[in-house]
Amino acid sequence: MSKDILKIGAREFSSRLLVGTGKYRDFDETREAVEASGAEIITVAIRRTNIGQEPGQPSLLDVLPPDRYTLLPNTAGCYTADDAVRTLRLARELLDGHNLVKLEVLGDADTLFPDMTQTLAAAETLVKDGFDVMVYCSDDPIMAKRLEEVGCVAVMPLASLIGSGMGILNPWNLRLIIDNARVPVIVDAGVGTASDAAIAMELGCDGVLMNTAIARAQNPVLMASAMKKGVEAGREAFLAGRMPRKLYSGAPSSPTSGLITG
Amino acid sequence: MSKDILKIGAREFSSRLLVGTGKYRDFDETREAVEASGAEIITVAIRRTNIGQEPGQPSLLDVLPPDRYTLLPNTAGCYTADDAVRTLRLARELLDGHNLVKLEVLGDADTLFPDMTQTLAAAETLVKDGFDVMVYCSDDPIMAKRLEEVGCVAVMPLASLIGSGMGILNPWNLRLIIDNARVPVIVDAGVGTASDAAIAMELGCDGVLMNTAIARAQNPVLMASAMKKGVEAGREAFLAGRMPRKLYSGAPSSPTSGLITG
Amino acid sequence: MSKDILKIGAREFSSRLLVGTGKYRDFDETREAVEASGAEIITVAIRRTNIGQEPGQPSLLDVLPPDRYTLLPNTAGCYTADDAVRTLRLARELLDGHNLVKLEVLGDADTLFPDMTQTLAAAETLVKDGFDVMVYCSDDPIMAKRLEEVGCVAVMPLASLIGSGMGILNPWNLRLIIDNARVPVIVDAGVGTASDAAIAMELGCDGVLMNTAIARAQNPVLMASAMKKGVEAGREAFLAGRMPRKLYSGAPSSPTSGLITG
Amino acid sequence: MSKDILKIGAREFSSRLLVGTGKYRDFDETREAVEASGAEIITVAIRRTNIGQEPGQPSLLDVLPPDRYTLLPNTAGCYTADDAVRTLRLARELLDGHNLVKLEVLGDADTLFPDMTQTLAAAETLVKDGFDVMVYCSDDPIMAKRLEEVGCVAVMPLASLIGSGMGILNPWNLRLIIDNARVPVIVDAGVGTASDAAIAMELGCDGVLMNTAIARAQNPVLMASAMKKGVEAGREAFLAGRMPRKLYSGAPSSPTSGLITG
Repeated sequence: MSKDILKIGAREFSSRLLVGTGKYRDFDETREAVEASGAEIITVAIRRTNIGQEPGQPSLLDVLPPDRYTLLPNTAGCYTADDAVRTLRLARELLDGHNLVKLEVLGDADTLFPDMTQTLAAAETLVKDGFDVMVYCSDDPIMAKRLEEVGCVAVMPLASLIGSGMGILNPWNLRLIIDNARVPVIVDAGVGTASDAAIAMELGCDGVLMNTAIARAQNPVLMASAMKKGVEAGREAFLAGRMPRKLYSGAPSSPTSGLITG
Repeated sequence: MSKDILKIGAREFSSRLLVGTGKYRDFDETREAVEASGAEIITVAIRRTNIGQEPGQPSLLDVLPPDRYTLLPNTAGCYTADDAVRTLRLARELLDGHNLVKLEVLGDADTLFPDMTQTLAAAETLVKDGFDVMVYCSDDPIMAKRLEEVGCVAVMPLASLIGSGMGILNPWNLRLIIDNARVPVIVDAGVGTASDAAIAMELGCDGVLMNTAIARAQNPVLMASAMKKGVEAGREAFLAGRMPRKLYSGAPSSPTSGLITG
Repeated sequence: MSKDILKIGAREFSSRLLVGTGKYRDFDETREAVEASGAEIITVAIRRTNIGQEPGQPSLLDVLPPDRYTLLPNTAGCYTADDAVRTLRLARELLDGHNLVKLEVLGDADTLFPDMTQTLAAAETLVKDGFDVMVYCSDDPIMAKRLEEVGCVAVMPLASLIGSGMGILNPWNLRLIIDNARVPVIVDAGVGTASDAAIAMELGCDGVLMNTAIARAQNPVLMASAMKKGVEAGREAFLAGRMPRKLYSGAPSSPTSGLITG
Repeated sequence: MSKDILKIGAREFSSRLLVGTGKYRDFDETREAVEASGAEIITVAIRRTNIGQEPGQPSLLDVLPPDRYTLLPNTAGCYTADDAVRTLRLARELLDGHNLVKLEVLGDADTLFPDMTQTLAAAETLVKDGFDVMVYCSDDPIMAKRLEEVGCVAVMPLASLIGSGMGILNPWNLRLIIDNARVPVIVDAGVGTASDAAIAMELGCDGVLMNTAIARAQNPVLMASAMKKGVEAGREAFLAGRMPRKLYSGAPSSPTSGLITG
């Protein structure tokens, strides 16, 4: 595999693992885990993390410098389109015009499920305003298509709820999204362990974004390495083309269809 | 992770991926795939592969030399304890007394499910005869314990049927076997893609053995690399200690138990 | 269980199985299957079925008379809010002011996945116009809540895609919807066999609506009977309160949480 | 469906639900639950339940008279073939020569997983001794075939461990057993709720035996009714022939095979 490039808008990346920066013990652990993950795109919750808003305080940019990583400001904690748009405009200022962002508008503080109506509205505004919008969304294939149509550069459906670690609850919907998308599809939220990341990639996703699964592992740095390998394993398996499934060696064809057939 | 050694009997290995040598296009493809897999233990079907029985014919040992790999002769194609024992004695002669072997006694040419009664009988004979027996078995936890008790150096339960690529059909039985074993537990048969291998390792298996999943991928060499990373990803995730599952971020604890509770 | 009533708006029903009327061989088979199902609510695709629009042609009302069944006109085949609203207004005229309807607005002719933006718009219009709206929707819990808030009398999330028979693909989302709803939650679409219906009811759904699973079974009338029993079985199991799951008899508690925990 | 008879040896039954009698509050609850279940075959743990061994004590036969139910003495609590054989000979005496029995030989007091070697030995002895042996077993298809070959009148593979309520963990193995069996296959152990029973029947099982799922429900009598309907629903769905699965309405064929195919 000489070259397997992930293109998001005009940008190109070698790593297909995107990571968050929340929930770590301190900035040192953040840095070590990010390094072990091999991630090139690092998402940052603008409302919770100092990237210069608070001069004099320690800044994440000290440990993850923008000349080495592609920062991806996100709107974690925003519950309306307006809030999300305002937050990302602030981020753009702080980051000298950097326009690649991750939009998320949440519907509910318990489940952190996205509010797709507000998300769609915010996406339209941001695209018109010159942002390259990567957008966190439900696994609704119609909504994913709409977000692509309004100009988002990547759609980021959940595997399961943010912080749940439940893995990919509905691979079928992901599959519909992937089959119809002309922009990268990046699973965002819900991955709990390395095999979840591998499964997402084997389904044909272009990348995986995660935070809690690494930060809340007992050993975050080792888990970051596991995730790096899990994403690569899944990607290579997808490109290699897996063997067909058969119920048993001598069986004629795919068995799974017939499971409960009378 | 400075050192994570797999001990089988008195032997030590760094790789936890064991591979077979059947179903490849030719010996060259076999060698390339084996190299990409990083495997140190290579299993060989004595009844189907020339390792010296047929002088003058190309030998697998030419491409996979015993000074570089640990050969693991196996009894694929044997349906009785007697046949299996005879086959492995022949292998020991051919390999100058090499006594590490993989026993499998099949019950049925269609499903290739093991015949556990014959397997147990053969295992007892072979252990008494000085072999280090790694044994292919069903996922019956009582049988797995018995095989350990008669002296096998590793138990190798199926994930699903040989050549099926169905993945791990019953993780619960695997879990019971792992929780009770004092010898390595190596999943043998049924792995279809990289995430299957990762899941096996995350469950706590000590290793994974596979053949068809690599040899019958569209690109076997790339799949071998995927499997190497999948096994390492799963192992590291297991050692790192994954985050707990929760139905949603604010949920009190494990959700999976309550799914269909009234 | 003396009385277990399903209330939809002001109407009360004993049966929790709702059935469609499409895809049968003829009206006779439709009638027999509906009778075997025990359903009291019968949904009818206004754009495809004659309930009086075409005088002189055979009418479904001849075999399923409105004095015996509660007809539920639906908007199958509508892809915009306007179309759906227009269709249901026509139905109300044809049925002498009958105002209980099932709204569906599809996003795509291949998947028949709902267009939730258009669905929400149509629901608002119809509620204001005096309809009792039961609404087909995705399993997005935020959207389901919004539909309840605009005044729908029941929310009807899909189990899987219309006509797919794939069963309940994401029980977790259904669970979130059920836990938050104050109107009946009725699974609509995706049920393929009797156990699917039972599972939906065990999750706590208030009812199940289906069509293809009965009409496209090899023996539709027998499958209708199976579905009746499946819904009742699941409902009674839900009310009876199932035993807790344990990995094994002597295990301390729920095992499912720990499956792949390191 | 005029007649759908379950034949076990020479005996014929209308109900396909077999129930146990342990873990109830008292004999009254046992009787009520058994009646609600519609079961005709009632299994009794000879070592734990008085059916006459202790004259003067309340006997189960008072509430479940042998002229109304077919009693099925079982060997719960036996860990060797000898113990099991001895127990069933005692039962035959107590029950005036009644020779239909359920054999179980356990391997382990924690998991209650069967010891298949001992089970097979006991089955051979009992068949030669004139018993009609229904046999609890693992889901190993080779073992199930062997038990049929030694003359058992029914094989009873576990769905999951006794008392676990985990449902059907490996439907694929059950399927192999069913496809190869010429005697009835009755799922025994592991059913937790009504949908589990329905799924077993939809797979093509001839019956389901359960105890804990009813006795340990919050409302055992209502759960018994749910189970009756669940078994009937699954049986009818099996006979009716379910619709094929498709990922979406317009999809060409079975989707499940392609899930993670590259």
